[in-house]
Amino acid sequence: MFAYMLDYNVPGGKLNRGLSVLDSYKLLQEGRELTENEIFLASALGWCIEWLQAYFLVLDDIMDNSHTRRGQPCWFRVPKVGMIAVNDGIILRNHIPRILRNHFREKKYYVDLVDLFNEVEFQTASGQMIDLITTIEGEKDLSKYSLNLHRRIVQYKTAYYSFYLSVACALLMSGEKLENHLDVKNILIDMGIYFQVQDDYLDCFGDPKVIGKIGTDIEDFKCSWLVVKALELCNDEQKKLLYENYGKEDPACVAKVKELYNELNVQGIFEEYESQSYEKLVNSIEVHPSKAVQAVLKSFLAKIYKREK
Amino acid sequence: MFAYMLDYNVPGGKLNRGLSVLDSYKLLQEGRELTENEIFLASALGWCIEWLQAYFLVLDDIMDNSHTRRGQPCWFRVPKVGMIAVNDGIILRNHIPRILRNHFREKKYYVDLVDLFNEVEFQTASGQMIDLITTIEGEKDLSKYSLNLHRRIVQYKTAYYSFYLSVACALLMSGEKLENHLDVKNILIDMGIYFQVQDDYLDCFGDPKVIGKIGTDIEDFKCSWLVVKALELCNDEQKKLLYENYGKEDPACVAKVKELYNELNVQGIFEEYESQSYEKLVNSIEVHPSKAVQAVLKSFLAKIYKREK
Ligand SMILES: [Mg+2]
Ligand SMILES: [Mg+2]
Ligand SMILES: [Mg+2]
Ligand SMILES: [Mg+2]
Ligand SMILES: [Mg+2]
Ligand SMILES: [Mg+2]
Repeated sequence: MFAYMLDYNVPGGKLNRGLSVLDSYKLLQEGRELTENEIFLASALGWCIEWLQAYFLVLDDIMDNSHTRRGQPCWFRVPKVGMIAVNDGIILRNHIPRILRNHFREKKYYVDLVDLFNEVEFQTASGQMIDLITTIEGEKDLSKYSLNLHRRIVQYKTAYYSFYLSVACALLMSGEKLENHLDVKNILIDMGIYFQVQDDYLDCFGDPKVIGKIGTDIEDFKCSWLVVKALELCNDEQKKLLYENYGKEDPACVAKVKELYNELNVQGIFEEYESQSYEKLVNSIEVHPSKAVQAVLKSFLAKIYKREK
Repeated sequence: MFAYMLDYNVPGGKLNRGLSVLDSYKLLQEGRELTENEIFLASALGWCIEWLQAYFLVLDDIMDNSHTRRGQPCWFRVPKVGMIAVNDGIILRNHIPRILRNHFREKKYYVDLVDLFNEVEFQTASGQMIDLITTIEGEKDLSKYSLNLHRRIVQYKTAYYSFYLSVACALLMSGEKLENHLDVKNILIDMGIYFQVQDDYLDCFGDPKVIGKIGTDIEDFKCSWLVVKALELCNDEQKKLLYENYGKEDPACVAKVKELYNELNVQGIFEEYESQSYEKLVNSIEVHPSKAVQAVLKSFLAKIYKREK
């Protein structure tokens, strides 16, 4: 039962987050051949990140009442699982401190590692909270949506665990103190925000066959970058249309919102945003004093620039 | 919103678990006047245990599809909360490492404290898993119920966090290493099992006005000590009756099960169990070399012996 739950929920993603601990650690060692033990430890941390992700996704699907994930029914929709999925999520999560304890307890950076995972989990849960609160039935209010709110949700809900966490793990393994790398953290958070803006864009304009799902951000009243931009650009009449049609299940309403996005050239604005962000990120990376850190950050950026899925 | 969630879910219990860190620590100091800081720290750990409990209860009520808790609707049944309660539970839980970090990071026992809370959470979630699996619709199977299974569920689901955790916290604060106190752990686990047997008994035979709820263990097909005992004692005909009526919502079925319990004198068996357990616990406490530890264990036992709620 437990093994089945793992097989169902842990693999199947792109494993980007998990693999990037090893990739980053390699780059930080500047070409030095890694020992087998180092490879093992970096991979163990990578798996911890994948477990953290699996835990978030299992619970997120329950809270969003979703139907499918990675092309199969969400775990809580599997017969005989149901709300037991909540506890399964908790058990996935509980394996993280166990892995850390089993393999890192004697390391000087053990405490920092444990604190890091705890901090990132708390930030992610806080981001989830803001995200969930803004989309509560009966509390929906477009006038609260702004670039600021979007940034706050994304920074907490996605950027810390998807971007910062794996590099922070690699830095700790390299003997670094995280408080000396706040600049790296800030760059990775900005990259995470850029990544989520792409995600918001693809949800509406991406090819469902390529991204593997049909986006529902408009129906779900999500604080998407697209709606925030539309709110910024629209006139009073267009704003009225947005207020009347955003967050409705009715496909006619969704179509009207998409039409407005086209009218306002939100796609063009996105392309402009994408190249500007890219340029800004490259600039902030290139002023970093360490070439090895630059290489880590650039390899992250290369993975996501102009992605189509 | 967050403050409201806390007020709703954290207080209202008996605070036994929380207060017992301070009580135990006091006894371990053998009458020495505690400093204000010691009182603060022991209370902080007590609160961590209460938060852990609140987290478990919020999620347990969702998984059990319960209606009320401590005389008010379960958190997930409050309008506009719903499945957001899952994330609220996670946030409650995430405050534990934050409290530990803020107040204990410089202590020699910080790592042990963090590991302890992680271990106990994992054990509790594992106990929940066994409990949930045995009561899945379509998998119900009385032939799996035994004293052994009962013990395993209770040890993991209840005993570690309700009994062992607070004493372990007090021991760590006193500079002790937990691996030197496995005897204390075992006694507290036995006490936790004794406590749960009482809980099972009260669920069926307690006064709903005194215990504050109407028991539904029979309807819920729980692996209760009572049904395990009944299975041990019954003849083939009585066993058939149990198989046909246990785990059914129908009040007539429930009544038949209770009647059988009376026929088999399960109440008498319980009273015998209660005095035997008490005696055994007293004996194992009295062979402990430390009078201070004895005092801690006895104070726990005194709180639960012959309790009616
Ligand atoms: Mg979701
Ligand atoms: Mg969500
Ligand atoms: Mg999306
Ligand atoms: Mg329950
Ligand atoms: Mg339960
Ligand atoms: Mg009970």
